[in-house]
Amino acid sequence: MREFDWIAALAERFGRTGPGVTVGIGSDCAVLAPAPATPIVTIDTMVQSVHFDLDYMTWADAGYRAVTTALSDLAAGGADPELPIVAFLSAAIPATVRDEDLAEMRGGMAGAFEKYGVTLGGGDTVAIPGPMVLTCTFIGHAPKPMTRDGAKVGDAVMVAGHLGAAGAAVHLLRNQQARMDDDALLAAYRRPEALIGLGRALADLGATACADVSDGLLADAAHIAEQSGLALHLSLDAIPTHPALAAHPAFDDEERLRLSATAGDDYALVFTVPRDLVGNTVALAARFRVPCVHFGECVEGRPGAIESTWRGEAYTPEKLGYEH
Amino acid sequence: MREFDWIAALAERFGRTGPGVTVGIGSDCAVLAPAPATPIVTIDTMVQSVHFDLDYMTWADAGYRAVTTALSDLAAGGADPELPIVAFLSAAIPATVRDEDLAEMRGGMAGAFEKYGVTLGGGDTVAIPGPMVLTCTFIGHAPKPMTRDGAKVGDAVMVAGHLGAAGAAVHLLRNQQARMDDDALLAAYRRPEALIGLGRALADLGATACADVSDGLLADAAHIAEQSGLALHLSLDAIPTHPALAAHPAFDDEERLRLSATAGDDYALVFTVPRDLVGNTVALAARFRVPCVHFGECVEGRPGAIESTWRGEAYTPEKLGYEH
Repeated sequence: MREFDWIAALAERFGRTGPGVTVGIGSDCAVLAPAPATPIVTIDTMVQSVHFDLDYMTWADAGYRAVTTALSDLAAGGADPELPIVAFLSAAIPATVRDEDLAEMRGGMAGAFEKYGVTLGGGDTVAIPGPMVLTCTFIGHAPKPMTRDGAKVGDAVMVAGHLGAAGAAVHLLRNQQARMDDDALLAAYRRPEALIGLGRALADLGATACADVSDGLLADAAHIAEQSGLALHLSLDAIPTHPALAAHPAFDDEERLRLSATAGDDYALVFTVPRDLVGNTVALAARFRVPCVHFGECVEGRPGAIESTWRGEAYTPEKLGYEH
Repeated sequence: MREFDWIAALAERFGRTGPGVTVGIGSDCAVLAPAPATPIVTIDTMVQSVHFDLDYMTWADAGYRAVTTALSDLAAGGADPELPIVAFLSAAIPATVRDEDLAEMRGGMAGAFEKYGVTLGGGDTVAIPGPMVLTCTFIGHAPKPMTRDGAKVGDAVMVAGHLGAAGAAVHLLRNQQARMDDDALLAAYRRPEALIGLGRALADLGATACADVSDGLLADAAHIAEQSGLALHLSLDAIPTHPALAAHPAFDDEERLRLSATAGDDYALVFTVPRDLVGNTVALAARFRVPCVHFGECVEGRPGAIESTWRGEAYTPEKLGYEH
């Protein structure tokens, strides 16, 4: 191996063309099909032991997760799941990784590619004297792209999806407390799903800004506030903690809140909408079977500043989110 | 540092929008402008000490080179230098790298961005307990995309650009033989240029397949042959060895040939054209001040097979090209 092999092995499973790709693997460049809507692009890098820990998940999980976390960015951008999604993957692979592990990782990626209808556009496989590094560039198409900079003073701040599960799973794994009935938490961490249909529908409805909750709810809300040049007032009492965390005996209320508000890796969507759309938004999310909560307001103030309350008092976590 | 900083620092220099990018750095996805021609995409990963060696080049060189090698792929794909070229950069940065080195690398990249008119679309900065890893995804636009799979039996095989300089520079540096007057060779290695206007013109003229010479002339010609399902007969007597290598006393004729035919990192273009276009092609390359030589034919045979001759005898190098 492996300078030319790993991505090619993934391509073998999917062929050299597909929706959105006229010519894929094999040339200096992939040739894309004409874009059916505005192209949106995300790039994400994951380093072994920093962003994915093989003590806590399988190689297949790591592959699946690399794909769905990139898709989650496309969801936040308003990508249409029916329009082409094209992936470019780069893998820097240490000599110590076994071929069967690489095959397992490919299998995990392939599962996510199939589930979400992703076309492999191209990639690069190189050797590295260090940890494995996986970089995913995904191109989607958004009829109405969403960014982080469109929130307006007076808009409602909302979150759709479950929070805190991945953070709880990491805590349990790290402290060797995970048990048989923690499957739901562990799955949320190891095999996150991307809310890509919901993102597109929120854009249509009129969401003004959106981010996925990868760094942590407060951190990602702050990114929206910063990019939009405003501040946020948030109330954390009703944010949608994952049911398996809400019922879990290993955590007290304050730990549940901290995990839900700051732990990240949840891939929920945090977004802003004009106030009169709050009801419609909750109804829309229900159609996607996702809890959706209005938990704050956009206000004038220092860009990115957040004031949050919990049980009637100011809540100021040590960190807004997780930095790897 | 540096989870969020390094790419943002590069973006500060260029702003959040530019040709081809409606919304860049700051959101989960970049939003691209509608494509003015067929989008073509390349992704390349470079690992410190594997693909760029800071004993042999500065941080600024490494940054410049990362950009121009990606542009060279776009050149081979027929990208139009007048249409938007959008870059997405991911950097995995070890804690041991100094901030001033990162600033220098940004400076090198910025120089190449400005020279070639590249817009920064987005990126990702992460920490790594290992060597620095830089992944570049570039999106260009080709009115007539070129790939490696369009060569036909009977087509002429040609190469445009200088060969062997980068390989010679690495040899001299490795053996501590580099001298003051080796500047031209060292510059060709440290600051390669992309033949991006020429690629577009070759596509217009009717080139049937194209690759850039990153792995080595024979290796990249073999890639075309393999993808196109045919074999090549090549004559290496007249291939355009870099003038500074052709005149260099440290190398004999056979070493010059080996470096020109197999060393790679030259970023010349190897391509195929119908036989009746050979004359026009040489004239076209002359307008770009690039030597251009017809050195072989596409023939029926095992896909990817190459027979090459030098001075009337079969020439079979140990390796067709360089694998890092």
